[in-house]
Amino acid sequence: MAPLKSWLSIPPDSDFSLSNIPFGIINSKNNPSEKRPAIAIGNHVLDLKAFSKANGFSGLPSLKDPLTVFSQPTLNAFAALGQQTHNAVRTYIQDIFSESTSNPQILKDNASLQKEALLPKHETKTHLPMQIGDYTDFYAGKNHAFNVGSMFRDPANALQPNYTHLPVAYHGRASSVVISGTSIRRPHGQILLDKTASPPQPTLTPTRALDIELELGCFLCTTSPLGTPIPIGPAAASSIFGFVLLNDWSARDIQTWEYVPLGPFTAKNFATSVSAWVVLPSALQGFRVQKLQNSTDVLPYLREESDDSVYDIQLEVDLTTPEGDTTNISRVSARHLLWSFPQMVAHHSVGGCAMNVGDLLGSGTISGASGGGGDLGSLLEACQGGKKEIMLKGMDVRKYLKDGDTITIRGVCGEDGARVGFGECVGTIESAIQL
Amino acid sequence: MAPLKSWLSIPPDSDFSLSNIPFGIINSKNNPSEKRPAIAIGNHVLDLKAFSKANGFSGLPSLKDPLTVFSQPTLNAFAALGQQTHNAVRTYIQDIFSESTSNPQILKDNASLQKEALLPKHETKTHLPMQIGDYTDFYAGKNHAFNVGSMFRDPANALQPNYTHLPVAYHGRASSVVISGTSIRRPHGQILLDKTASPPQPTLTPTRALDIELELGCFLCTTSPLGTPIPIGPAAASSIFGFVLLNDWSARDIQTWEYVPLGPFTAKNFATSVSAWVVLPSALQGFRVQKLQNSTDVLPYLREESDDSVYDIQLEVDLTTPEGDTTNISRVSARHLLWSFPQMVAHHSVGGCAMNVGDLLGSGTISGASGGGGDLGSLLEACQGGKKEIMLKGMDVRKYLKDGDTITIRGVCGEDGARVGFGECVGTIESAIQL
Repeated sequence: MAPLKSWLSIPPDSDFSLSNIPFGIINSKNNPSEKRPAIAIGNHVLDLKAFSKANGFSGLPSLKDPLTVFSQPTLNAFAALGQQTHNAVRTYIQDIFSESTSNPQILKDNASLQKEALLPKHETKTHLPMQIGDYTDFYAGKNHAFNVGSMFRDPANALQPNYTHLPVAYHGRASSVVISGTSIRRPHGQILLDKTASPPQPTLTPTRALDIELELGCFLCTTSPLGTPIPIGPAAASSIFGFVLLNDWSARDIQTWEYVPLGPFTAKNFATSVSAWVVLPSALQGFRVQKLQNSTDVLPYLREESDDSVYDIQLEVDLTTPEGDTTNISRVSARHLLWSFPQMVAHHSVGGCAMNVGDLLGSGTISGASGGGGDLGSLLEACQGGKKEIMLKGMDVRKYLKDGDTITIRGVCGEDGARVGFGECVGTIESAIQL
Repeated sequence: MAPLKSWLSIPPDSDFSLSNIPFGIINSKNNPSEKRPAIAIGNHVLDLKAFSKANGFSGLPSLKDPLTVFSQPTLNAFAALGQQTHNAVRTYIQDIFSESTSNPQILKDNASLQKEALLPKHETKTHLPMQIGDYTDFYAGKNHAFNVGSMFRDPANALQPNYTHLPVAYHGRASSVVISGTSIRRPHGQILLDKTASPPQPTLTPTRALDIELELGCFLCTTSPLGTPIPIGPAAASSIFGFVLLNDWSARDIQTWEYVPLGPFTAKNFATSVSAWVVLPSALQGFRVQKLQNSTDVLPYLREESDDSVYDIQLEVDLTTPEGDTTNISRVSARHLLWSFPQMVAHHSVGGCAMNVGDLLGSGTISGASGGGGDLGSLLEACQGGKKEIMLKGMDVRKYLKDGDTITIRGVCGEDGARVGFGECVGTIESAIQL
């Protein structure tokens, strides 16, 4: 398919081509006090509140009361309208921006609305796109689970017996989810310096093993009451609003000591970063690929009609040292999942757990199958639990993150001129506070 | 201290004496469409919106704009005002209702306001008292942790090495917290019928091991930004709004199969019940007792000035069969905790986790030290993992709950005429849906 052409100048390598149209929340130089919805396009954003106010949606009568929906400080109200509406709005905006638009009077030939609503991206700031009800982090990256299991047990018993039967997950902390660009404060916690001491003598200290987890995040757009599972198939698929990049920052030394028997807690709840622009499933439709093959014949409530339910998104992770040297430390496709998001939704709700608009699901850490380096989603795997240094530019090395390090995650599908990308998910490590 | 006397007729065995004054959210026969704050007193509730509207708080000028605060459908706005205000309001209401009130014109001699704002409790319905941001369930009931650890490992290694060093917890699911009286739908989930089969063959089925967890819940009233721990001492103590009874319903067969390695998930996220009336710390002040002694010298960030930081609340659990026979299955004091709520707050936030007004913390299951029966907080312990029947009235027995069973938890401190109680936390098991 030839790239869609726009009357707006969009750099060919932009994540936000006319094929994308992701949604986010901004404020701007010309209106700093008001958070409001927008879409990203090339080096611009379209302020959907200003656009609605000027009757920009007059060509889309099926969208009722756009000004109310797009005057909210989060995307929850828009998300709650359902996928059919999301797709109608995306298609309408694609038309408004296309060279051969059927509605040139709306924006193409309307210099005053362009001035008011089409803002240079560098004059805007992004915020958390959704009010998050609950946040759940899955563990669907099978290569990651295998690598970690091999390290802590042995390769023959790397995966727990339940792993191929159900998408393992833990409840995360919604209050700790932050927007890309937020600095990450190195957390204190209990760690065991001497693992052989008896009785154990934990120390309260800033973590020495601050790690990343390269994940895809998924925001939900449906509300299901308590006691009502969301079945696999159309119901689970249509519960998905869209996707973001997600970094579930982790303190490995705290985690090792605290996680038995109820799972990770303070090792994770100090911060989780998400990228700003929510990419709709319809924008990713052409990049569906088969998920990892499951040797287990899963129970019917998790069985999908077709296995092409994950996306071939090219993810990459850069580490920039405080001195400014940037090294790419991972490149891997988001296809390396054993479970798709519709399967996660079906499992999450099978016992009747209430799901809400704005709930966030993390995929779990995504690592490639190389077994070696270059395609791993965590430093834990890359440094083999602390046994190995990772080489960086600037004659530097790392096992885990140092103060002042910046992690930048990117994700993109497709070719120049028609790229569907996520922008960046960035965080810089700040030194621990004095306790 | 002699009981406070009221001009209102309060039954001497009421949980809601003049010494209590707990806060909740109601609607009523005379105003069914509006959820609003109230306090419980004897067999009545005082509608705080109607009371504010009629200038009932005119004798408490330090309380700014009571009508706005008490026109909300949750207690979050009131909670956010802080303990000093909560205590001032409680003391003021105690005065308004006392026989020798200094403000008789406000309510005692004001028949029309009594008619409007002082509602018979049976004409009102209670709702979730707070909008819950995040829900965390701790594991501070040491006897429970010991009993369960003994069952799954052995008594010599019952407690994990970290148990006496930090309050173990997992993040729960805020969307699954329901108000007392809500029916509990038996959840489906994956269970292993044959634990020896290789490879394992899980089945999707309604749980056969539906259990209770007898807990105290604690709502928070302060907001701490990400990266900012709440230190033990006055800061942690003043972050507590108040307490409720909590039943963290659990499906043991689902839990056993799913919980490795990241903790419980669908085994817990189908429902957690809380009682309706939030009892303030000031009402419980006279019932402080020493928590369980910790053999470990805990790290300074968890060290309290004094150990009397838990409460001697008499908890009890009744099981009523579908045939209507009620058996008391547990009586135990809430003092059986190794960690206090201020310690939980300090640990929860030590890595910088953001805490919010309305967050809910569960204590973990509270069991006594008998080692036998009659004081256990879960059926798992009472039936010894399924080995033993629990005798019920009506010539019946149970291991776990059957459809139609009702669990009623009560909790109370103090003597007749001055009781500080929680009312009930009730749930009846409904049969599983057809999948």
